[in-house]
Amino acid sequence: MRDSYHDQLDDILADLVHMCQKVAIAVRSSTSALLDADIHLAEQVIGDDTELDRMQADIEERAFTLLARQSPVAGELRTVVASLRMVTELERMGDLAAHVAKIARLRYPEVAVPELLRPNFVRMGDVAEKMVVTAGHTLSSRSIESAEDLRSRDEEMDDLRSSQFRVMLGDGWEYGVEAAVDVALLGRYYERIADHAASMGRRIIYVVTGEFPETEYWPQP
Amino acid sequence: MRDSYHDQLDDILADLVHMCQKVAIAVRSSTSALLDADIHLAEQVIGDDTELDRMQADIEERAFTLLARQSPVAGELRTVVASLRMVTELERMGDLAAHVAKIARLRYPEVAVPELLRPNFVRMGDVAEKMVVTAGHTLSSRSIESAEDLRSRDEEMDDLRSSQFRVMLGDGWEYGVEAAVDVALLGRYYERIADHAASMGRRIIYVVTGEFPETEYWPQP
Repeated sequence: MRDSYHDQLDDILADLVHMCQKVAIAVRSSTSALLDADIHLAEQVIGDDTELDRMQADIEERAFTLLARQSPVAGELRTVVASLRMVTELERMGDLAAHVAKIARLRYPEVAVPELLRPNFVRMGDVAEKMVVTAGHTLSSRSIESAEDLRSRDEEMDDLRSSQFRVMLGDGWEYGVEAAVDVALLGRYYERIADHAASMGRRIIYVVTGEFPETEYWPQP
Repeated sequence: MRDSYHDQLDDILADLVHMCQKVAIAVRSSTSALLDADIHLAEQVIGDDTELDRMQADIEERAFTLLARQSPVAGELRTVVASLRMVTELERMGDLAAHVAKIARLRYPEVAVPELLRPNFVRMGDVAEKMVVTAGHTLSSRSIESAEDLRSRDEEMDDLRSSQFRVMLGDGWEYGVEAAVDVALLGRYYERIADHAASMGRRIIYVVTGEFPETEYWPQP
């Protein structure tokens, strides 16, 4: 019975890792759709989001069944509860990738991102995607170092966003209000994807060590 | 032992209702700080947010202890798990109110919201605050009608946000890029507060009926 509980928990964790891979693809595809005004790719990200919703519902149900079945030992209980949290964050990251894709679709055939900020968004997309991949790796390896890597990447994301604001509010901005509104929201979506990935790192440290890392250095969930 | 479990769960629910009241105050105060460029009120909302974080940590720990103590019956388990979710949403709503207050502080002594959109933000603030109050009422009354009220108010919030975009992207916008960026983000924060409140309504329906309402009509958590 114990083994079976343990196996089912392992299956949930494996599916969370699988979900990280799907979310990483969604983030990469939405960034490509955004930067290349690729309407087909944008539609694909938006459509595929229902698959992430389905995975979330499935994982939640299984975690709930595990909680109902028997009282797990403390470490397992922490893991089940953290899984319920992480699956919500992954589903949310999928939504945010779909939000990026929706702005790409809204501005098609134009590119929503002005040329001046293209390198910034290339980097933002890259950091966000790598953070989701790292969250998945952290989950499968339970590596504290890997979780800490998420923290420093999240700081890089914050810097990228600050630099967007400097560009938009500086004298050289000649792209008007619509582009600024798009950039403000797009930047927010990427920042939130990064926050969720960093928050997953924090939860994994909690699962592994039984304690949350110092909150002042970590973004809150 | 059963009674004691039940009592502790009731205490958690009562504290969630109390947290709703605190969040409703944060939302109202942040709106006042925003519309009146009231720096002291803005600082107060930002400072008080740590109290919401503390309440979240306390409620989480008690819910976790309840999960560890014994296997609850299905209805109680649903309630404990929903409580863990709702406390996260309430903490997040507090963060979003603090984000509103931070924009008020950033633009002080100017008012971040242009005169043209003042009535819109008055209404947004009002809808958001009422939704948080209704979420608290729904939680204490377990009323399905009250939960459904959250859905229609969330639609009103979406309409308010759409009308902000029409104003900003229309010909009459003479407030420049900075104000547009502020409005885009502020609108997003209020919309997210409303989403979280509506999501709480959805979770309460789940606790009461054992089933989620049809997802097409409800915002996802």
